[in-house]
Amino acid sequence: MSKPTISVTLTTNPKPRPDEKKLVFGKYYSDHMFIMDYDAGQGWHDPRVVPYQNISLDPAAKVFHYGQTIFEGLKAYRTNDNRIVLFRPDQNWDRLNRSNDRLSIPAVDPEVAMEALRTLIKVDHEWVPSEPGTSLYIRPFVIATEPQLGVAPSTKYMFMILLCPVGAYYAEGLNPVPIHVESEYVRAVKGGVGNAKTGGNYAASLKAQEGASELGYSQVLWLDGVHRKYIEEVGSMNVFFKVNGTVITPALNGSILDGITRKSVLQLLRSWDVPVEERQISIDELVEAHRNGTLEEAFGTGTAAVISPVGALHYNNEKLVINNNKTGDLSSRVYDTITGIQSAVLPDPFGWVLEV
Amino acid sequence: MSKPTISVTLTTNPKPRPDEKKLVFGKYYSDHMFIMDYDAGQGWHDPRVVPYQNISLDPAAKVFHYGQTIFEGLKAYRTNDNRIVLFRPDQNWDRLNRSNDRLSIPAVDPEVAMEALRTLIKVDHEWVPSEPGTSLYIRPFVIATEPQLGVAPSTKYMFMILLCPVGAYYAEGLNPVPIHVESEYVRAVKGGVGNAKTGGNYAASLKAQEGASELGYSQVLWLDGVHRKYIEEVGSMNVFFKVNGTVITPALNGSILDGITRKSVLQLLRSWDVPVEERQISIDELVEAHRNGTLEEAFGTGTAAVISPVGALHYNNEKLVINNNKTGDLSSRVYDTITGIQSAVLPDPFGWVLEV
Ligand SMILES: Cc1ncc(COP(=O)(O)O)c(C=O)c1O
Ligand SMILES: Cc1ncc(COP(=O)(O)O)c(C=O)c1O
Repeated sequence: MSKPTISVTLTTNPKPRPDEKKLVFGKYYSDHMFIMDYDAGQGWHDPRVVPYQNISLDPAAKVFHYGQTIFEGLKAYRTNDNRIVLFRPDQNWDRLNRSNDRLSIPAVDPEVAMEALRTLIKVDHEWVPSEPGTSLYIRPFVIATEPQLGVAPSTKYMFMILLCPVGAYYAEGLNPVPIHVESEYVRAVKGGVGNAKTGGNYAASLKAQEGASELGYSQVLWLDGVHRKYIEEVGSMNVFFKVNGTVITPALNGSILDGITRKSVLQLLRSWDVPVEERQISIDELVEAHRNGTLEEAFGTGTAAVISPVGALHYNNEKLVINNNKTGDLSSRVYDTITGIQSAVLPDPFGWVLEV
Repeated sequence: MSKPTISVTLTTNPKPRPDEKKLVFGKYYSDHMFIMDYDAGQGWHDPRVVPYQNISLDPAAKVFHYGQTIFEGLKAYRTNDNRIVLFRPDQNWDRLNRSNDRLSIPAVDPEVAMEALRTLIKVDHEWVPSEPGTSLYIRPFVIATEPQLGVAPSTKYMFMILLCPVGAYYAEGLNPVPIHVESEYVRAVKGGVGNAKTGGNYAASLKAQEGASELGYSQVLWLDGVHRKYIEEVGSMNVFFKVNGTVITPALNGSILDGITRKSVLQLLRSWDVPVEERQISIDELVEAHRNGTLEEAFGTGTAAVISPVGALHYNNEKLVINNNKTGDLSSRVYDTITGIQSAVLPDPFGWVLEV
């Protein structure tokens, strides 16, 4: 099924579009959505764009009980010359299928997924916002729908794509955030599902996130589940530290997500001849670097915020302030370059941007 | 809300009931189900028994994306004198709320849950099967329903209860099963959600279970995620080993489930003056005990099977056969006693059984 015919049913009842100046993350959905069904023996079938609507499922559907579900997240941008472009969607289909494999979900043909996304965005093109900093967040996901309570992979699935217009992450430019280093809860461990984009990882993170918020920190810095000392991620972002001129990020070790922003930042830094290291890095090493004045910058990377500077780390009742709680020069340069490429304001030397 | 009024809407279209001799696990659902909604600010509201039916949810509901969901499992039995009894339901409501807490889901009042279950079972009392070995499997669960893609606890939930008549787990009596000791995949780690009954743990187990099945083993024996050598659980059961007359089960360490069958087996063994130990036990200790002939019995415990004897352990390309692949005397005695108490064939010295 690599040249699918996607049926399109248009809404007769279009919604009012939200004020582009007041967009928030994950709240507004466009007029249509994409659905495709899977049945064992038949494979994926009936790809279709339909009006955005509730879905009706048996309460015994496996997704409600056994968390057999995966998702992706990417963005489309409206360019100054009014084209609509996507950032590295091939990477998302690739990761979608790695997540599918880990969760025993049948693969989705990347060509079908891409054609589905193109068709949906064309139908809802008016939902791609144009205010500076805004974008269209795209949420592909798969859920297990077989109504059977045995613990075993489902024989039925739905693959869907939703579209949400979202606002600028930083209304007033890049803003460093304070982060709590989590020492009680663990997000994921090697051998588990930490490197898959699956619901369980996010469910496991809620409690720690609530605790950090209560202490006044906006996110959690996760440590590894084995030694409880190596840096994993920050919230749902990958994390980078600039120490004495070298940029260090945790290596892909099986328990962190292979972020597409992470990958792009690494490629960019290498193209600038900034020394980068992908390796284990312990919280002790960071504390030591802070102590001797070489912890120069820290930032998270992810599709939602692109770059999120870290202004301080709270660890063991100590608060390590980074770069005077200001956004570092390298963080800014990375942010400006990637967002510039994403919105086609800057040239695209890496071939990252795809027109819809 | 501790004396709820539960509204009841009866089906006008009752289903044919399945042949009690051909029941399988988790496939047939009774005519009705229980639902109660939660909205932030309002709490749990509108408890109701309604005809079994699909539920309609926004595709952005958090359960589809972030796995914010928990469940329980317990059974009702029809006694010889035609009463309907439950096994330790208070323990399930207790664990439900511990799971809720870990997943940042608001607590459900145990009295409301109990009244909901009583009401539902009374309405569907004809669905409690009476063939020897059959029972009514009960599935309470909570799902997060707010349509919001931010990673944060939901502000809306549904608590539901489904009923499934299920067959005897062992059509021809207790049957030892061969188990694969998993050394690649990990189910859960301390600091994670392994001690909560939440979807993500089961999603994480599917791939290992598939691998074990391909090798001809019926379940996986999970090792701990830190040292990769201490025994955790077997499939979705707790696990016990009889070594040289002493019964050993892994201590509740934060990454295994606090099983109600486990708890009941421990209480029973102690009442019989069988030496029991709840402690760390390594796979090496078991291999050594097998070598010197002191690994006498092994069995899993859980609501579905009650007791599941382990006939062999497959570890590092070696196959350790236990008790000649026969069900051990102690395993049988525990099985007969617990199932006898559950169905009110035997007296109930511990006050475990509750009439509906
Ligand atoms: C757990 C986690 N880590 C890292 C990331 C960053 O990945 P990406 O850059 O592909 O958005 C995400 C997703 O945004 C995530 O959910
Ligand atoms: C992971 C896991 N471990 C152990 C058990 C056993 O718990 P219980 O005896 O309460 O059924 C279950 C549930 O059946 C389970 O899902």
